[in-house]
Amino acid sequence: MNKNRLEAFSDGVLAIIITIMVLELHVPTEPTWHSVLEELPTFLSYLLSFVYVGIYWNNHHHMLHLAGRISGGILWANLHLLFWLSLFPFTTNWMNNADLAEVPTLVYGLNLLLASIAFFILKSALMRRQGRNGPLEVALGRDWKGKTSPFLYVLGMALSLVQPALGVAIYAAVAAIWLIPDRRVERFLTQGHGAAPGPG
Amino acid sequence: MNKNRLEAFSDGVLAIIITIMVLELHVPTEPTWHSVLEELPTFLSYLLSFVYVGIYWNNHHHMLHLAGRISGGILWANLHLLFWLSLFPFTTNWMNNADLAEVPTLVYGLNLLLASIAFFILKSALMRRQGRNGPLEVALGRDWKGKTSPFLYVLGMALSLVQPALGVAIYAAVAAIWLIPDRRVERFLTQGHGAAPGPG
Amino acid sequence: MNKNRLEAFSDGVLAIIITIMVLELHVPTEPTWHSVLEELPTFLSYLLSFVYVGIYWNNHHHMLHLAGRISGGILWANLHLLFWLSLFPFTTNWMNNADLAEVPTLVYGLNLLLASIAFFILKSALMRRQGRNGPLEVALGRDWKGKTSPFLYVLGMALSLVQPALGVAIYAAVAAIWLIPDRRVERFLTQGHGAAPGPG
Amino acid sequence: MNKNRLEAFSDGVLAIIITIMVLELHVPTEPTWHSVLEELPTFLSYLLSFVYVGIYWNNHHHMLHLAGRISGGILWANLHLLFWLSLFPFTTNWMNNADLAEVPTLVYGLNLLLASIAFFILKSALMRRQGRNGPLEVALGRDWKGKTSPFLYVLGMALSLVQPALGVAIYAAVAAIWLIPDRRVERFLTQGHGAAPGPG
Repeated sequence: MNKNRLEAFSDGVLAIIITIMVLELHVPTEPTWHSVLEELPTFLSYLLSFVYVGIYWNNHHHMLHLAGRISGGILWANLHLLFWLSLFPFTTNWMNNADLAEVPTLVYGLNLLLASIAFFILKSALMRRQGRNGPLEVALGRDWKGKTSPFLYVLGMALSLVQPALGVAIYAAVAAIWLIPDRRVERFLTQGHGAAPGPG
Repeated sequence: MNKNRLEAFSDGVLAIIITIMVLELHVPTEPTWHSVLEELPTFLSYLLSFVYVGIYWNNHHHMLHLAGRISGGILWANLHLLFWLSLFPFTTNWMNNADLAEVPTLVYGLNLLLASIAFFILKSALMRRQGRNGPLEVALGRDWKGKTSPFLYVLGMALSLVQPALGVAIYAAVAAIWLIPDRRVERFLTQGHGAAPGPG
Repeated sequence: MNKNRLEAFSDGVLAIIITIMVLELHVPTEPTWHSVLEELPTFLSYLLSFVYVGIYWNNHHHMLHLAGRISGGILWANLHLLFWLSLFPFTTNWMNNADLAEVPTLVYGLNLLLASIAFFILKSALMRRQGRNGPLEVALGRDWKGKTSPFLYVLGMALSLVQPALGVAIYAAVAAIWLIPDRRVERFLTQGHGAAPGPG
Repeated sequence: MNKNRLEAFSDGVLAIIITIMVLELHVPTEPTWHSVLEELPTFLSYLLSFVYVGIYWNNHHHMLHLAGRISGGILWANLHLLFWLSLFPFTTNWMNNADLAEVPTLVYGLNLLLASIAFFILKSALMRRQGRNGPLEVALGRDWKGKTSPFLYVLGMALSLVQPALGVAIYAAVAAIWLIPDRRVERFLTQGHGAAPGPG
């Protein structure tokens, strides 16, 4: 089975997820600067979810670039990932509407956790198909970011029950981890190191 | 006529259908675990419809892979299928809002039934173009799943009038039939058996 | 300029238009057969708009298949067409919400008229680029359907002011004209006749 | 990294943005011509945002056509642009709902400004990768339109605080600048002039 339509379908779903979130942004009732300020937390959570979908699109893109042919199981592992990502607009929206209450903030983190587990399952399925020392295993190396993130999500979820803002701070920190040192990894890889560096 | 744009357009429509269903998920009014529990049936029905669109995308993908050139009639048979699939967000939503009442649960099953008939029409149109023993006929074989599903949908619809939860159980069972034994069929096919096994 | 991205973008927009119309279908308030009957006109108008977008996608597909390279002007002629098509969900919705009142039914016809004019402009721009006896001019021939439709839309609009149901009947008849005798035209073309038959 | 999936993903996001704006058009409450007139400002602002997304798609299309391979940084510069564009439905909607009040009109201009800055960042990143006298630098030349627009947006934003209609007039004028003299530039380029003319 060819991977092109899988990529095209995933691109479509991710493009829709990243865009429809904005439909949940409620237009301020008053045309004042004060209303803009009140919308700021909503805006920031939209930004956070936008960045997360961007990260997933980015990683999905890289991973499938290295993948070979696709089986029926891989197709469903991919749909499983898209399922959790498709819930981002919903969980983001709930967190906003509830003004960062404990349970919705924890549920948002749970959504992040489940998406990362789904990504791990998809990655494993693709690697298993390539066998030992396949391109994916060499390129992703120890993947300390992929292995650390779930624990940070759980930490963020736990902190949400104490102080939701702390939970969100952790979720944002994980996004930053994925965004920032990417270039360092790229450099290492282009220097011929098979494995990415990391504390993992 | 080339099939590439047909595939791209269908992928686009299916990607949108599978994603906009989440727009119908109502954000809980209270930020409590109790609200999460109350959302559970809605969530499960969203999952069910997501899986159904996934199955259709999967089968559509395989079928068109084996198809040759496309006529104007096939194009409309494909739009006919997309029409019924595009109603999934609506019928799913009604079933949820009405808390699994008899009529909406039956209508959901009717939607599944009409989509499966539309798929059958599309399949037949593609096969007719290939003539006897074309790739599609050989690959799909007796297609007991495609032939059994409509009867199960009708059974689910009938049960919906007695006990809606039973109807939904049948709908979920059909989805499971399509999901689970796929690998067995694949194995048979790769072993060189032209026809898939089945009780049909 | 290459036409591939123009096709892909148009496919994307048309796929979204055809799918988001379903978001406007209001879920019945009561879970009864009576509610289903009440939804029937809405459902039929959704079907009508779905068929119209399908026709446009179909014709767009054929026309661009025969088109050569694209200029900046053609790109905007295409966006102009997409603009009017993007209003279908809005005008369909208004016609439904107003229970087939005179003005919204006329406005729906106006939307159809403007889309058909935009299609004509796009077609002319593509033909002008190919010069006399280019593939598009030969294939489309006298194009009696394209030339008759605008007059029928105006007739439907006028009738809407007298009896809206009559207006909708005309709009549906035009859709039927585009759907049904397509095969006859195809046959003529494949028999080597350059021009399609018609009373135009 | 290949630019095809970047183009496909951007096309998808832009197609969705341009289409979902219509979901914000509120159906008139009364089925009268008076209601149509009342909707006119909303309709015009929808048209303006539609044209802006069209311009961005157009320019994005041309720019990536000339771009070479893509780095991780360029991918994020592209997502940054898509982020601001994805807010168009929101800011358009607010401006309409508030009947052209000062703050929302200024915020709409701010959205235009931030999108144009994001486009500038993306353009610069692509150019830097090509080095001095790369295809992009030669084709875009002095780019007086790209350089003048931000100042006009700021002017429009300032005027919004005095008289919002004036601000919108400026925003519309910038759109017109991008639309109208494109052909002149194209002619110059096809005549072999490396740089586009302009007062910049």
